[in-house]
Amino acid sequence: MIVVMKPGATQAQIDHVVDRIEQLGLRSHVIVGTNLTVIAAIGEKRDGTRQALETADGVDKVVPILAPYKIASLEVKKEPTVVCVRDLVVGGGRIGVIAGPCSVESREQILETAHAVKAAGATALRGGAFKPRTSPYSFQGLKNKGLELLAEAREATGLAIVTEVMAPEHVPLLSEFTDVLQIGARNMQNYPLLEAAGESGLPVLVKRGPAATVEEWLLAAEYVLNTGNKKVILCERGIRTFEDHVRFTLPLATVPWLHQHTHLPVIVDPSHGTGKAALVTAMARAAVAAGADGLMVEVHPNPEKALSDGYQTLTPDQFAQLMQECRRVAQAVDRIM
Amino acid sequence: MIVVMKPGATQAQIDHVVDRIEQLGLRSHVIVGTNLTVIAAIGEKRDGTRQALETADGVDKVVPILAPYKIASLEVKKEPTVVCVRDLVVGGGRIGVIAGPCSVESREQILETAHAVKAAGATALRGGAFKPRTSPYSFQGLKNKGLELLAEAREATGLAIVTEVMAPEHVPLLSEFTDVLQIGARNMQNYPLLEAAGESGLPVLVKRGPAATVEEWLLAAEYVLNTGNKKVILCERGIRTFEDHVRFTLPLATVPWLHQHTHLPVIVDPSHGTGKAALVTAMARAAVAAGADGLMVEVHPNPEKALSDGYQTLTPDQFAQLMQECRRVAQAVDRIM
Amino acid sequence: MIVVMKPGATQAQIDHVVDRIEQLGLRSHVIVGTNLTVIAAIGEKRDGTRQALETADGVDKVVPILAPYKIASLEVKKEPTVVCVRDLVVGGGRIGVIAGPCSVESREQILETAHAVKAAGATALRGGAFKPRTSPYSFQGLKNKGLELLAEAREATGLAIVTEVMAPEHVPLLSEFTDVLQIGARNMQNYPLLEAAGESGLPVLVKRGPAATVEEWLLAAEYVLNTGNKKVILCERGIRTFEDHVRFTLPLATVPWLHQHTHLPVIVDPSHGTGKAALVTAMARAAVAAGADGLMVEVHPNPEKALSDGYQTLTPDQFAQLMQECRRVAQAVDRIM
Amino acid sequence: MIVVMKPGATQAQIDHVVDRIEQLGLRSHVIVGTNLTVIAAIGEKRDGTRQALETADGVDKVVPILAPYKIASLEVKKEPTVVCVRDLVVGGGRIGVIAGPCSVESREQILETAHAVKAAGATALRGGAFKPRTSPYSFQGLKNKGLELLAEAREATGLAIVTEVMAPEHVPLLSEFTDVLQIGARNMQNYPLLEAAGESGLPVLVKRGPAATVEEWLLAAEYVLNTGNKKVILCERGIRTFEDHVRFTLPLATVPWLHQHTHLPVIVDPSHGTGKAALVTAMARAAVAAGADGLMVEVHPNPEKALSDGYQTLTPDQFAQLMQECRRVAQAVDRIM
Repeated sequence: MIVVMKPGATQAQIDHVVDRIEQLGLRSHVIVGTNLTVIAAIGEKRDGTRQALETADGVDKVVPILAPYKIASLEVKKEPTVVCVRDLVVGGGRIGVIAGPCSVESREQILETAHAVKAAGATALRGGAFKPRTSPYSFQGLKNKGLELLAEAREATGLAIVTEVMAPEHVPLLSEFTDVLQIGARNMQNYPLLEAAGESGLPVLVKRGPAATVEEWLLAAEYVLNTGNKKVILCERGIRTFEDHVRFTLPLATVPWLHQHTHLPVIVDPSHGTGKAALVTAMARAAVAAGADGLMVEVHPNPEKALSDGYQTLTPDQFAQLMQECRRVAQAVDRIM
Repeated sequence: MIVVMKPGATQAQIDHVVDRIEQLGLRSHVIVGTNLTVIAAIGEKRDGTRQALETADGVDKVVPILAPYKIASLEVKKEPTVVCVRDLVVGGGRIGVIAGPCSVESREQILETAHAVKAAGATALRGGAFKPRTSPYSFQGLKNKGLELLAEAREATGLAIVTEVMAPEHVPLLSEFTDVLQIGARNMQNYPLLEAAGESGLPVLVKRGPAATVEEWLLAAEYVLNTGNKKVILCERGIRTFEDHVRFTLPLATVPWLHQHTHLPVIVDPSHGTGKAALVTAMARAAVAAGADGLMVEVHPNPEKALSDGYQTLTPDQFAQLMQECRRVAQAVDRIM
Repeated sequence: MIVVMKPGATQAQIDHVVDRIEQLGLRSHVIVGTNLTVIAAIGEKRDGTRQALETADGVDKVVPILAPYKIASLEVKKEPTVVCVRDLVVGGGRIGVIAGPCSVESREQILETAHAVKAAGATALRGGAFKPRTSPYSFQGLKNKGLELLAEAREATGLAIVTEVMAPEHVPLLSEFTDVLQIGARNMQNYPLLEAAGESGLPVLVKRGPAATVEEWLLAAEYVLNTGNKKVILCERGIRTFEDHVRFTLPLATVPWLHQHTHLPVIVDPSHGTGKAALVTAMARAAVAAGADGLMVEVHPNPEKALSDGYQTLTPDQFAQLMQECRRVAQAVDRIM
Repeated sequence: MIVVMKPGATQAQIDHVVDRIEQLGLRSHVIVGTNLTVIAAIGEKRDGTRQALETADGVDKVVPILAPYKIASLEVKKEPTVVCVRDLVVGGGRIGVIAGPCSVESREQILETAHAVKAAGATALRGGAFKPRTSPYSFQGLKNKGLELLAEAREATGLAIVTEVMAPEHVPLLSEFTDVLQIGARNMQNYPLLEAAGESGLPVLVKRGPAATVEEWLLAAEYVLNTGNKKVILCERGIRTFEDHVRFTLPLATVPWLHQHTHLPVIVDPSHGTGKAALVTAMARAAVAAGADGLMVEVHPNPEKALSDGYQTLTPDQFAQLMQECRRVAQAVDRIM
């Protein structure tokens, strides 16, 4: 890290910072500039405690140099991670498509959707059984019954199942029914949950929190990786901004940025990422063109009657059209979809 | 809610929306304007499912009218809620001050801080035993040992204890040691945790998530209230914006807005709300002037050596100065502090 | 518009709002709901003055229904606007590419760039002669000399010229040298400038301000259109958000949204939209896949020595590669590039 | 500045950066760390061109150290700047209050307001004659007639006049009628306007742009200061964020931050800063408690009939109440109001 002293900092203040750096087990290197002095601390650790130096007298700011994540970084592992489960392949030039309703609502609904998305080319089925809902008065999911229906849909179609886990104590139950554990955006920094999901050994899909920086997102992935579980998929699903014509702003530049900084595969959710059905297909095409390793799309036989997220959900026909358009784009960027 | 049709929507599309509204058990009311038609749905419920209407053909957008929270709203309960525990009183014209270190680090550290903040006028001690940390490599708290030290500090000073709970399964343990359960900003939408905290019967302090709208924040409080627990304190701790001279932007207008929409007391955390020790005192004064019912401030005997959050932490002397300045402002706005 | 009364609003307050609506020349329509009353005002004008109703006693909020822009809207003109000047065609299925340096720096630099981008397939040359710079100490452009060099490059290559205008009084001078007048992001709400540019009769490229909603952006375009000049190009160049791994967040969902709400063509600037050269090509591909009608890309023979914006500028070789990749994506979405 | 090389950067890449730094007339200093190498460039200038180094091969990022503003900085001038004109005093422990309508609408309206705000204790009258309006269909101001009315109000009350200037060519005209030239938020980066206002010699009030960082804001002030005009007032008026219960988020921490970094006085506009009349008084109190050197408040005899900004405008009675409450807070923070 680099400690920037205030203009006019005294020699005693500089000496104090040097002492503190050395107490932290680092080497210090003082650079006297024309306007002010900066002190480099060499050997920076990743544990975050050194930002306390910012409170030392005469210090203006502390600039960290080292990225705070490690196992997730491209420096540690150069080859892209590919996550495979059943027919779902995410990464390594293959674009995996996860599609399905926001919530599992009924046997008929989930089976109809599963068959439709499979026919259109999806290799995994999404569907919430335990639903985190902003309001306590909204539909909270079919819970155990929902899991059974997902398993039935898997049986019927061979699709891999992706479903969200909301609490550490649900991990064992969900692990019996799902192929991928999804960490929702609201829980991206729920650390006991990340650890419990990691310890399951199942692939873990980590959605970006709507106010999370990419560093915080990679650190959430690092919690999973740190359990020894290497099968992590990152999912960009939009951030909170001042834009009010969309529910969230979908910042696709995270896709190439992540490919330049981590070996983990990154998929895009254009449904949550826009919150408007009319924008989903164009953004799915754009995600593929930006290099995404996969897509996660909400599909329901009758979005108007969906118990959740109807406004951002495609019909099976619209989804089939999306797949057709995305496949052409995938080919244009030399990806297999 | 108000359904706004697109210009040129057909009669069939309008009729379809009317049908759907009536199927939902609501009354509809069609208003034909000069450019477009809007349809009011009367009897709106709060369960959120009706936004699915946005996907109906010919619909431009759906505007909800009713606030989605209920128990938290001022319409339901007109008198301000006052939360009292030991000497801590939050609300009703009294300003409660919760102060202490980010993390409990040692017996000496927590006792020294407790005595100092008590002497300066705080009525509650904060301190993390189980710490949610952005990085898995950062100090994660003393856990059970930390709880014991907090209890010892309470014994020694009479201060009420406020500490964060990170997982539903920790609630019983923490309930033995703490007077107020804190829901951290990262967990504001961790619904199993909100419910478990609510069911403990202890006062629950709900921090605002950094990307949460005030509605989402009140709905998080509603999860707690919905368990029958009425002792909820809201805590504004800053939001994520583009500003880069602070760690978070502290939007104090939430204080008067909340007082106009909810009976729950609202306190302000100027430490997290700025992320810079040099800004904490001015923002504490501003929070009191805006009408806050309390303050939550990070204090450590030696911020430079704090294991977490040092950059935003005050020394005991700085905190005593803050209290002195805030008391004068409190008097100027007819509050007792 | 819809006036939402507070719960418990009195009949006198409702009557007052009805009176005010009628004084404004609108018809009113009172809808008594179960919890509160709303009043529709029919015949809404677009002049914005009616929001004053929000201050009337008993009013909770006023929800506008009508989009505030008119000439820019798809309701008024259904066929997409195509802007053509020399070989640059933007809109109507054709993707126009505008490339060149941030600033014109020298005869050699601009000619070399012009030839290179033309060879790669660009049909217009960008280059700043009058430069708005955040700091008064930064390079402010070659001014008149820069315009002459642009004209020389046009002569030599046939490329259309796009350059920024910073003040109304510069419009006549610039009009002699440029084919398209660019309104920079910082000036998106500089209304005298928008009007002066509109009155020139030249095509006007309106960049989105980094904090502008799409409505505000379309209203800026409306200022130009309102002068009678129909040749407006919208340019998405990124917004200010909390993301810190990019200079701006590029929200590509504006592309399909605009195509669903306005007839004006929309192009994307992935250089400013990311602020990082390493992300430009991927985001250019994504923009084309999202349906953009054109691209605006910064290119310099030696970005490391550029007097401005070097960090987001491509070399001619990188630009040629971008064009090749984007052409394949364009084909996959049935566009001509 | 500090150039951070990528892990694994080659010696040739490091040497190249060193060469480039020296070509820029700076000294370089290479620090080899355990994971990567950083190169300090000593003697940093403020002209911004060096960020081009970010494009050099092997460079990860460039961290600037020096603040980019100079004349505005506290290092250059340690005593606070106090701006005085007629009875308006901003800075130096005095809180100046500027109040009045958004727009001058009529002789009666402006005179009535002027007398009322003077009676309540304001020392300056605000009022727009040339109005920048988001929509071309909104009221654009009385223009020259408005200026004459402001002059009449000044004559009648002795209040200083503050009015907005929208274009460089209006500066001479406005200078005849106003005491302070206001640069609106939309024009904060309109550099020809900043320079023309500076050259008038009148005090210039620079409003913060809603997406501007504090650095960009100070650089806008620097454009004015750089003309030799030292009478600059900064005005915080809120930023664009995701919050939707207010029109803008008012980040009061800018007040103490600015006092720690610039000698210029800073005032707060709680009317634009919230966009809701019901929140203005509480935020005015908070601004004073945070240390603001002044307030700018919208007041109209009948906000409901105001031609602009009615929703955020106080009545004369509400303003008198605001003044009374703020004076008590001012006293509590040892300021004169």
